[in-house]
Amino acid sequence: MARVSTPGEEMYALVERMYPLCRSITGDGVRATLDIVGEYIPLQRHEVPTGTRVLDWTVPQEWNIRDAYVADATGRRVVDFAASSLHVLGYSVPVQRTMPLSELRAHLHTLPEHPTWVPYRTSYYRPDWGFCLAQETLDALPDGDYEVRIDSTLADGHLSYAEHVVPGQVSDEVIVSSHVCHPSLANDNLAGIAVATYLARALAEGTPYYTYRFLFAPGTIGAITWLARNAERVERVRHGLVLACAGDSGQLTYKRSRRGDAGIDRVMQHVLGASGRPHRVTEFTPYGYDERQFCSPGFDLGVGSLSRTPYAGYPEYHTSADDLGFVSPEAMADTLAVCREAFAVLDRDRAYVNLSPYGEPQLGRRGLYDALGGRSDAKEAQMAMLWVLSLSDGEHGLLDVAERSGLPFATVAAAADALHGAGLIKA
Amino acid sequence: MARVSTPGEEMYALVERMYPLCRSITGDGVRATLDIVGEYIPLQRHEVPTGTRVLDWTVPQEWNIRDAYVADATGRRVVDFAASSLHVLGYSVPVQRTMPLSELRAHLHTLPEHPTWVPYRTSYYRPDWGFCLAQETLDALPDGDYEVRIDSTLADGHLSYAEHVVPGQVSDEVIVSSHVCHPSLANDNLAGIAVATYLARALAEGTPYYTYRFLFAPGTIGAITWLARNAERVERVRHGLVLACAGDSGQLTYKRSRRGDAGIDRVMQHVLGASGRPHRVTEFTPYGYDERQFCSPGFDLGVGSLSRTPYAGYPEYHTSADDLGFVSPEAMADTLAVCREAFAVLDRDRAYVNLSPYGEPQLGRRGLYDALGGRSDAKEAQMAMLWVLSLSDGEHGLLDVAERSGLPFATVAAAADALHGAGLIKA
Amino acid sequence: MARVSTPGEEMYALVERMYPLCRSITGDGVRATLDIVGEYIPLQRHEVPTGTRVLDWTVPQEWNIRDAYVADATGRRVVDFAASSLHVLGYSVPVQRTMPLSELRAHLHTLPEHPTWVPYRTSYYRPDWGFCLAQETLDALPDGDYEVRIDSTLADGHLSYAEHVVPGQVSDEVIVSSHVCHPSLANDNLAGIAVATYLARALAEGTPYYTYRFLFAPGTIGAITWLARNAERVERVRHGLVLACAGDSGQLTYKRSRRGDAGIDRVMQHVLGASGRPHRVTEFTPYGYDERQFCSPGFDLGVGSLSRTPYAGYPEYHTSADDLGFVSPEAMADTLAVCREAFAVLDRDRAYVNLSPYGEPQLGRRGLYDALGGRSDAKEAQMAMLWVLSLSDGEHGLLDVAERSGLPFATVAAAADALHGAGLIKA
Repeated sequence: MARVSTPGEEMYALVERMYPLCRSITGDGVRATLDIVGEYIPLQRHEVPTGTRVLDWTVPQEWNIRDAYVADATGRRVVDFAASSLHVLGYSVPVQRTMPLSELRAHLHTLPEHPTWVPYRTSYYRPDWGFCLAQETLDALPDGDYEVRIDSTLADGHLSYAEHVVPGQVSDEVIVSSHVCHPSLANDNLAGIAVATYLARALAEGTPYYTYRFLFAPGTIGAITWLARNAERVERVRHGLVLACAGDSGQLTYKRSRRGDAGIDRVMQHVLGASGRPHRVTEFTPYGYDERQFCSPGFDLGVGSLSRTPYAGYPEYHTSADDLGFVSPEAMADTLAVCREAFAVLDRDRAYVNLSPYGEPQLGRRGLYDALGGRSDAKEAQMAMLWVLSLSDGEHGLLDVAERSGLPFATVAAAADALHGAGLIKA
Repeated sequence: MARVSTPGEEMYALVERMYPLCRSITGDGVRATLDIVGEYIPLQRHEVPTGTRVLDWTVPQEWNIRDAYVADATGRRVVDFAASSLHVLGYSVPVQRTMPLSELRAHLHTLPEHPTWVPYRTSYYRPDWGFCLAQETLDALPDGDYEVRIDSTLADGHLSYAEHVVPGQVSDEVIVSSHVCHPSLANDNLAGIAVATYLARALAEGTPYYTYRFLFAPGTIGAITWLARNAERVERVRHGLVLACAGDSGQLTYKRSRRGDAGIDRVMQHVLGASGRPHRVTEFTPYGYDERQFCSPGFDLGVGSLSRTPYAGYPEYHTSADDLGFVSPEAMADTLAVCREAFAVLDRDRAYVNLSPYGEPQLGRRGLYDALGGRSDAKEAQMAMLWVLSLSDGEHGLLDVAERSGLPFATVAAAADALHGAGLIKA
Repeated sequence: MARVSTPGEEMYALVERMYPLCRSITGDGVRATLDIVGEYIPLQRHEVPTGTRVLDWTVPQEWNIRDAYVADATGRRVVDFAASSLHVLGYSVPVQRTMPLSELRAHLHTLPEHPTWVPYRTSYYRPDWGFCLAQETLDALPDGDYEVRIDSTLADGHLSYAEHVVPGQVSDEVIVSSHVCHPSLANDNLAGIAVATYLARALAEGTPYYTYRFLFAPGTIGAITWLARNAERVERVRHGLVLACAGDSGQLTYKRSRRGDAGIDRVMQHVLGASGRPHRVTEFTPYGYDERQFCSPGFDLGVGSLSRTPYAGYPEYHTSADDLGFVSPEAMADTLAVCREAFAVLDRDRAYVNLSPYGEPQLGRRGLYDALGGRSDAKEAQMAMLWVLSLSDGEHGLLDVAERSGLPFATVAAAADALHGAGLIKA
């Protein structure tokens, strides 16, 4: 009997499909990646021309690459782009030369502390070329002349990104952003793209309160481009989450927004804490992924970042060891589950006003209270109603109620529904 | 030689007198209780007719009961109201029937986990009848028919409550509230009534700053009735304390007001801490006693609650085991002592303004400072004067000074008196 | 080869010169002390006439003393002012009498718990006379008559104090205050005077941002006199530090201003913490040295106090044991070093405004960013730039950036310089 695949397995399969592509901040690798994601969720695609001013930046030339290698005197390719997109310094200008190893070394990047791993390196804004390879490969190269060839183009073109929107009851938005510019690195950030994709599908199963916007764009320049082109929409962003490094075996790590106490910060801390999972909540730093842009002081959006092991926090980070074996269906499923729980709270958290605030309203007459008094085991649902009534002064939301009462958010939300249904509170 | 009785012994004797009465939220048991309290302190009595609208509630019919029993086929009373007022479900409608045990069971309430105790149960707002008995009594009943009789009346009448006022120098009020609706339960709340009574007597020995109002009313509906009928007076309530479960052997527990940092909250925390007594200070919850009404968000009064072991915090709670052996003269005396200390601080805490705030005033010239300089053992009284001068900016009260300086409140208050006498500060 | 003396040694030599002088709140001992300090830094001298009203106080008569002793029947001086200025009760009125020891005892001050030490005592505002001596000296005195003589004058004159100003780029001021009224006590406060003197010299090596004003005045009445005569200048005081007990071997102790979170409070806590030195930071109390006046509620200046072991915190305090052996060049040098570090931070701490606050500015194009991407070891200098950009919203200063980022203040300041140079932030 055919076994139905789990979301974790489906996300892993999506990662596998995207893995071989050579992505960068522009170029056909990004387009091919968005083509694949577009098979899972409908995408609105954008192509922004080279030279477009975006905030303090300018959209750069588009980079595409067909082939690259270092070949020894016998013509054997000792470093070959065909084997891994990591072998070429990202945004390398074209080159075709023969030079002695001694001269070539200045263009070769290795990780001496991990001699079998290939590092990931780029040079987006300073014209350069180079190759990344394992230290042990380099060590094995005899002196002598080598042919180096990078068949790339840097030319006017476009920066590509895509959006997917899950419409909500209000036009206020929650943005979820995943960078799509890294080449064959599974955790950074194919896992994040996969979790975002399946989160979008999950949200579309209902009609959420907020409108949820998923952004698939190259890091830094992509977020900056989106921010530059969506000045009005930015005004409507209430919350946001950057998903990165979402599939490794480490515990979940939530990094707060610059504000430190934004709605998403409180929700993620609550949900991670209430879930009983081992986890970390770290303070904002202006380094990392696209929270850097969303949280820049001019925007100062309530955007945090969810990772498992965060950037630069594992030795495999930005190396060939961040491969398909470094991520797992189970870890991605776990990240997705927490995102769903968190967005359920975020979406339902609202402040109510008690319409009968002088003394307690008589719940019993409305069928909301256990009729037999004197029992000390006040039921959780009734406690939740008393808490919602007590704190519904227009300033405390349901998450405040859950945190102050120690009751589960879902119980509190159900109590609010009951009280709202009885006309005792209004939103 | 005749020994003079202590306040603890006198409070215990008062509890003993009130214990046998069958109290409920209305009826003659409450009136008889107020009659007894009225022998100790003058009371202003109120009778509010059935049907009166009070906030979201309506004053219910008055309940009175003369007799109630379950008798076996031989006529032997196996459950008898005459033995304990707890045996009847509070507010039971009248009944006179004979029915098999199998049918009667639905009306019998026991505590299987404490087979010798009788639970306390009520059904104020849903017409019902029932008996409460020990599990072992129930277990011993043979099958067969039983005569059940509850000779009660539920009829238009009144809700009864009483007030006692200790007039102060200002019309701003402190309210002290004790519920009087529970039947034969010593700690809950005869001990609270007794402590409140003796606290009122103690306050009347002087002329306090605030006007102190003591409220003896049935729980919930009584407080709601008082709030509904005293809208203007509520505006003048500055602080308040609910006294409940005031006589058991547990350590004192202060439960904060909804505000969390109201004057009474700070005073109780300070006095309990400074006293060196083991104690607990707990956060507000919208469950408990009449702080629920006083702290409802429309009123949001600075009213906390003082108990020893708080409601539902001891197995004997709301059972026949909360009897005269469960409370003691010593425990009630201790509760009373803390209340007196706390009200002494509350009554004296005031913010002053330093009239010589630029540099220190020359205390020596006013006879307020030790004339011989150079000694390092600055006396506590002089430190208290310096602290009062330093913090008297109109925003810090004497309790702030005591807490920040670590000096006893009484020392700080004496320093304020001396500085006030010298014309250096004004209230 | 001649060894160059260290600042610690030079400060110690200055203490040695001042030690023998008999200082008080007025008189020639203060003038002679200011003469010596004036050899190190230029001083603006002030003489305020007796009887001048200063805030709540009046400048007292000037006290001068030429000789004082207690002589036995043989004419031997058993207590002699010539041996130590501590032997006379400060501000003693003149006396020349012969009296029996039994009568004299009321005028003799000793420290029974330290029988070889001479206490320091004064009676500024109540006319009195007396001698201070070792308990063992007193114990050795046979009964009989003694000649007592104090050749002092209390007459209209002046209160003397001095100021030294290091001009800055702005007229906003930082004041550094050291009391000069104590006689032969090395730590209290000759060490403080010496550290202040050398701190002034160090600040004059550059052009600081703030104007730094050093105040050498008698305790209490001196600070009050300065405050009374400088009402307009007080408005310009932004920060201040009282230096006292600056030379003993104990760890540094910073006492916060009354505000508790003034700039100097944050700077001292940061610098002491970052330095790795064992240290204490204590809360404000309205006792101590001239922070009492600067922090009185009418002024409420951001003035803290730096000591090693603070007043009354060591047995030698206000005794003859606070002598030249109680202080050391090393301890004074350490106090000076911390003051210099703290004032470097205080002087440089400023809030900037990010002029490119929407997204990150492109640092690379301005030569401010490592061009080769993908490396995880973001350099400290680049992190500092990102932090300064992130927090430069006009509300956070560089100290805030250092504390939130965990980066050294100097690194943060250098980043601010670089960003300012690139036109990316403005002050």
